[in-house]
Amino acid sequence: MPATEIPVPLPQQPYKILIQEQGIAEIGQHLRNSHLLRKTLGQKILVVSNPQIWKHYGDRLQGSLEAAGYEVLSCILPAGERYKTLKTIQKIYDCALAHRLERSSTLLALGGGVIGDMTGFAAATWLRGISVVQVPTSLLAMVDAAIGGKTGVNHPQGKNLIGAFHQPMLVLIDPETLQTLPGREFRAAMAEVIKYGVIWDEQLFQALEASPRLDQLRYVPPSLLSDLLKRSCAAKAKVVTQDEKEAGLRAILNYGHTLGHTIESMTRYRLFNHGEAVGLGMIAAGRIAVALQMWSQDCCDRQHRLIQKCGLPTQLPQDFDSQRVLSLLRSDKKVKDGAVRFVLPRAIGQVTLIDQVPDEVVLSVVEALKSPHA
Amino acid sequence: MPATEIPVPLPQQPYKILIQEQGIAEIGQHLRNSHLLRKTLGQKILVVSNPQIWKHYGDRLQGSLEAAGYEVLSCILPAGERYKTLKTIQKIYDCALAHRLERSSTLLALGGGVIGDMTGFAAATWLRGISVVQVPTSLLAMVDAAIGGKTGVNHPQGKNLIGAFHQPMLVLIDPETLQTLPGREFRAAMAEVIKYGVIWDEQLFQALEASPRLDQLRYVPPSLLSDLLKRSCAAKAKVVTQDEKEAGLRAILNYGHTLGHTIESMTRYRLFNHGEAVGLGMIAAGRIAVALQMWSQDCCDRQHRLIQKCGLPTQLPQDFDSQRVLSLLRSDKKVKDGAVRFVLPRAIGQVTLIDQVPDEVVLSVVEALKSPHA
Repeated sequence: MPATEIPVPLPQQPYKILIQEQGIAEIGQHLRNSHLLRKTLGQKILVVSNPQIWKHYGDRLQGSLEAAGYEVLSCILPAGERYKTLKTIQKIYDCALAHRLERSSTLLALGGGVIGDMTGFAAATWLRGISVVQVPTSLLAMVDAAIGGKTGVNHPQGKNLIGAFHQPMLVLIDPETLQTLPGREFRAAMAEVIKYGVIWDEQLFQALEASPRLDQLRYVPPSLLSDLLKRSCAAKAKVVTQDEKEAGLRAILNYGHTLGHTIESMTRYRLFNHGEAVGLGMIAAGRIAVALQMWSQDCCDRQHRLIQKCGLPTQLPQDFDSQRVLSLLRSDKKVKDGAVRFVLPRAIGQVTLIDQVPDEVVLSVVEALKSPHA
Repeated sequence: MPATEIPVPLPQQPYKILIQEQGIAEIGQHLRNSHLLRKTLGQKILVVSNPQIWKHYGDRLQGSLEAAGYEVLSCILPAGERYKTLKTIQKIYDCALAHRLERSSTLLALGGGVIGDMTGFAAATWLRGISVVQVPTSLLAMVDAAIGGKTGVNHPQGKNLIGAFHQPMLVLIDPETLQTLPGREFRAAMAEVIKYGVIWDEQLFQALEASPRLDQLRYVPPSLLSDLLKRSCAAKAKVVTQDEKEAGLRAILNYGHTLGHTIESMTRYRLFNHGEAVGLGMIAAGRIAVALQMWSQDCCDRQHRLIQKCGLPTQLPQDFDSQRVLSLLRSDKKVKDGAVRFVLPRAIGQVTLIDQVPDEVVLSVVEALKSPHA
């Protein structure tokens, strides 16, 4: 099956996103057939994955790589955001040492965002940086985490506080892996897809609005799935290319994330997963924008309906401590000289960075998220 | 007192090495007077140091920075190579979080190579990279570690296996700090100075040969000290600028280090310090080059005498396991496709990379290092 290629033309290291049904079975050929990759990547590939993913796709991936002449080693980590720590990174280092990885060796992340972020960070820091290939198997990783070179782990007191920028050599997306993705993970990732609609791509937003259901993969027509993958990856690729190190434009990708991270952290990464928290963060950001008279109530409602149609939570628990939100926001890494920076929508497909959101607006919006939507 | 400026004109981030007597007392002005630094660095500076260094120079540094308007925070770590671990990096992260460092905040390393490497690594990985200023207080850090952006920590099974490239915004060298440097540390660093003579700068080598004694700072005339600092920094700056990420030329800086690291690791970082091990590594590399008929016995002897004149060890302990050297060399990060790469001299001031050194040559040279020099 032919692959869709989305270029990420970064000056220092241009790479491609390949979207291809059954792509995992052809990854060895993709690496061998690329002149650049053949020249850059050595013989050894250490695949980092978790038990479930490895069980489903490990054989197919390994077979394809070995058929192309690579030596394939594996490092299987426990699944879950709570293992996204420096301690787990140590395990990757130990595997790298045990298998005598060299500077020309490659790490390959086969899994969701947690596996991708950790594998990327290990690759960024082992021997001061070795190559990494991303094979995202969750929708969230496909449309977001695997693209753009952000890697990292959590500090006990905050998400992704420890990390590095380290671009992959290739991102290979095989939509078939979504078949085994739990429904909740699928829905959560749809929050990021909606995000691309709000911040960048009005047509994507409208395409999502046109679909009767979005809460389960089987209700999403293949043509829409294909379209949302391409459009989301293309949006991310374009933003990242214009601003690799998050000096400016890239900050718009944090739409919904400033509050989202705080919500995740305050509920100890247990009540909501990342995408669910981002969905809540987008609802909050939308309402802040309305309160600041930047955005229409109508657009805000359309966003709310879309998030709801994806089966995402739209309400905070009653015991959520809205007062604590502000102090936590200040320890977030998106703070600049003490001011919390919000990404707020101006239109469907367009956002702006705003530094001066009054504390009381944030508080009242967060507090209102504890009540059902009127 | 006027500062000597040595530019490090890296395309992505050009910076300067300033060498200035009493420079620590003027660091605040240096940061404020530079248009680039004033624009880049935020208000907060977290100084990372160890108890001894902080006691000697902490007040002076803090006073200068505060007088220039910076908010100065400190993070004091235990001294010693054995603390150069991810666990100690966690302490820097905890300080960074406690003091709410932002993306525009700066880490400042005040100390020797261990402090510089760890501070650089923490800066490379906190919030995916914040600014770092290096104020090296040991001769080793001045002429080597602080320049060039290599940062890292040790893995229990190997030195500097974990790390990142992260260039400083400024390197400030105040030679006065050498007054409190223990004699053994001074001698060890002279190994790196000799290294620059052998790999790059014949005049530096000859200047060192002309000095009657080099084993203690007080025997080194101020003019020679000034000259060796400038020439060593200039050599490192030139090599690093031509090859930031160690793709080629920069490997010559590893002269003496391939075996040096192995010697350090096999003696558990206790018997020899880094520079002493490098001195032994250079003696071994020199003899390997003679065995391969690349270098004259005369040059090899001149190098040996210079190392001896610095009061550096020139002999391995009798129980040193020469056989283990080869297997350890293979887990070193300078391995490429299984071949151990040596940097070997061709002349005073010129070296070459050699991949095919026969195991028996390495073994016999290492074994001979257990006997006194004939």
